Amino acid sequence: MTESTQFEALTDDTVVTTRKTIIVFSGEFDKVMAAFIIANGAAAMDDDVTMFFTFWGLNALRRTEKVATSGKSSLQKVFSAMMPRGPGRLRLSHMNFAGAGPKLMQRMMRQEKVMPMHDLIASAREQGVKMIACSMSMDIMGLRPEELIDGLEYAGVASYLGDADEANVNLFI
Amino acid sequence: MTESTQFEALTDDTVVTTRKTIIVFSGEFDKVMAAFIIANGAAAMDDDVTMFFTFWGLNALRRTEKVATSGKSSLQKVFSAMMPRGPGRLRLSHMNFAGAGPKLMQRMMRQEKVMPMHDLIASAREQGVKMIACSMSMDIMGLRPEELIDGLEYAGVASYLGDADEANVNLFI
Amino acid sequence: MTESTQFEALTDDTVVTTRKTIIVFSGEFDKVMAAFIIANGAAAMDDDVTMFFTFWGLNALRRTEKVATSGKSSLQKVFSAMMPRGPGRLRLSHMNFAGAGPKLMQRMMRQEKVMPMHDLIASAREQGVKMIACSMSMDIMGLRPEELIDGLEYAGVASYLGDADEANVNLFI
Repeated sequence: MTESTQFEALTDDTVVTTRKTIIVFSGEFDKVMAAFIIANGAAAMDDDVTMFFTFWGLNALRRTEKVATSGKSSLQKVFSAMMPRGPGRLRLSHMNFAGAGPKLMQRMMRQEKVMPMHDLIASAREQGVKMIACSMSMDIMGLRPEELIDGLEYAGVASYLGDADEANVNLFI
Repeated sequence: MTESTQFEALTDDTVVTTRKTIIVFSGEFDKVMAAFIIANGAAAMDDDVTMFFTFWGLNALRRTEKVATSGKSSLQKVFSAMMPRGPGRLRLSHMNFAGAGPKLMQRMMRQEKVMPMHDLIASAREQGVKMIACSMSMDIMGLRPEELIDGLEYAGVASYLGDADEANVNLFI
Repeated sequence: MTESTQFEALTDDTVVTTRKTIIVFSGEFDKVMAAFIIANGAAAMDDDVTMFFTFWGLNALRRTEKVATSGKSSLQKVFSAMMPRGPGRLRLSHMNFAGAGPKLMQRMMRQEKVMPMHDLIASAREQGVKMIACSMSMDIMGLRPEELIDGLEYAGVASYLGDADEANVNLFI
């Protein structure tokens, strides 16, 4: 074995990757925003980024308009009707003030020229951030792909773990 | 030094492990479920998994029945009486509906043939997931080992950090 | 290339670091305490530790006394007036009991000889834990450096990602 093939072998086994994964579990405005700021920052530094949206985090990916679906159980209908549709309707984790909090937060973001949530999501997509919607959570809550925004992948925890195994930063938000 | 001993040395220092650690801090039904789904998924992929239960996360490990204990301060008695005993009594982080939420969520899980929490915990144990109860949190809250389910280890943050140092995915839930 | 320079090369590329990073997003007493316990534990094991305080987590770094500031928008004035100043005023994530919860928790910590939050913060600083206040969050919420405790660095997400890239454990709390 030559030295150069040794290094190739090492590279295979011990490569220091710069993939990042973020599980977006919480559907709160501030936490989803933090997730997208980290994802956009990492993508801007040329990292591969995987965002895995599960449970309440899926609400951030819902289309704003109501979408007709079929085959939901009555419980699923109630749950999906009560859950917020899209980033504009998420609550704050603190100081929500019955829904006024997120609007105030967004106004403060505008004052400070921080990219609004909609643009953060669009930018993540443009930068090639992989956005996976957790298929098991969607089954439980009765969310259908047609209710979510375009450009998503649909997969389960094994797919997340595969990406996380290649990453050097893995966060649960 | 021969090439083979070189590689042994490398393995010692730079081994890419597939251990995963999960700190289960939050005692909410949905977050504990997410933790066990990830743990079971990783264990199914032959990873070593350490779950470190601390603070409210310990409630997921409590026995359902009341257990007589001695030596608790009056404050600890109040706290442990008010904290939920076992996974069946945890609340949802959103849409708890005064306790109805977790029951509805479990019914939706059954409808979709998702393993119920009890089975997720049993499966994690069968797959050899290491479950550590944080001894410092137990001291603070006055929880005794006899109040928790069998098969746990009892250790502190140093033990968690030791496992995390060997892992390539570390989550705080 | 001699064997020793080979190892130097390897060290450059594949060094197994023991840096830890913790994003402290949540400003709840129990979560901030968990963050500092992990940070202190890791520092005691000679790890480099970076804590990145963002959003509500910044409240844990606020000075207890009111600090006069200028140039805040009226919204920012309202937000910063309503947010807790310093660790002594943070709420618990569960069982807050209108503010009594954290006091009860601290009494239980004293009973069990667990280091109080103030000492945990001081100890982290003495052990050389790098504490970064997220400049973007400070801009949004209108928090000024003079309102925060001494010894902090001020930086953004790129700085966090730089440290996280060098770390083997990265948590979001």
